Amino acid sequence: MEDCIFCKIVKNEIPSIKIYEADKVLAFLDINPHNKGHTLVITKDHHETFDKLPKDILTDMIKVTQNVAKAVVEATSCHGFNIIMNNHKSAGQLVPHVHFHVVPRFDKDGVAGRWKTKKYDEGEMNEYAKGIKKRL
Amino acid sequence: MEDCIFCKIVKNEIPSIKIYEADKVLAFLDINPHNKGHTLVITKDHHETFDKLPKDILTDMIKVTQNVAKAVVEATSCHGFNIIMNNHKSAGQLVPHVHFHVVPRFDKDGVAGRWKTKKYDEGEMNEYAKGIKKRL
Repeated sequence: MEDCIFCKIVKNEIPSIKIYEADKVLAFLDINPHNKGHTLVITKDHHETFDKLPKDILTDMIKVTQNVAKAVVEATSCHGFNIIMNNHKSAGQLVPHVHFHVVPRFDKDGVAGRWKTKKYDEGEMNEYAKGIKKRL
Repeated sequence: MEDCIFCKIVKNEIPSIKIYEADKVLAFLDINPHNKGHTLVITKDHHETFDKLPKDILTDMIKVTQNVAKAVVEATSCHGFNIIMNNHKSAGQLVPHVHFHVVPRFDKDGVAGRWKTKKYDEGEMNEYAKGIKKRL
């Protein structure tokens, strides 16, 4: 897509430090890492969000993400890692081109903010389940 | 695994509100949701983390996660959603049985904490890339 920063990275119109390139998928270092070694895995074609991905590209992408995660773990000697995909602005997606974050983590690194939780009212959980199930 | 809470959910030894069940994958509602409709997608066999997953189970799991995400989006009318997998304690994994979170999100819901970022020193980014690339 014309104005997409990740499409420009794919086309080498913007520099990036690439980690791995396959037919449909590209991995490169995040320039604003949560920890050093934080890598992004993107589709080379422009797709905006997870739900829009064709199944074959989705499976390519997750396999590359797994390989990248293993390599990041070994290279950084991290203690853990997050696999994260934010979809749409309200979920914290900054670039509207689908990407998995592979974030190496260390014990008590203080990197992650605390996420709030909600409580279901009586019977509400079953209502939510019903609503989701009927769309599957 | 004997003492694994998610293995017990798979075997119906602990109650859960199930959303979808396939041969190798199960989806059910998180009882401590970040927003209502927050769903977990797990493997039915016990695998601890993302890097340990056999490729066929990984691809099954991501396809189910995509279908679940679409259904959660429709059912909750959310504005966005996160796909998250935490691996190991240092990354916030509470149950050591591999699971994707599908978290519906709403504009300014205030659910997510702010994650800190780091800065690479001069030349350090290339060193990290080299270390990761040689393990791929």
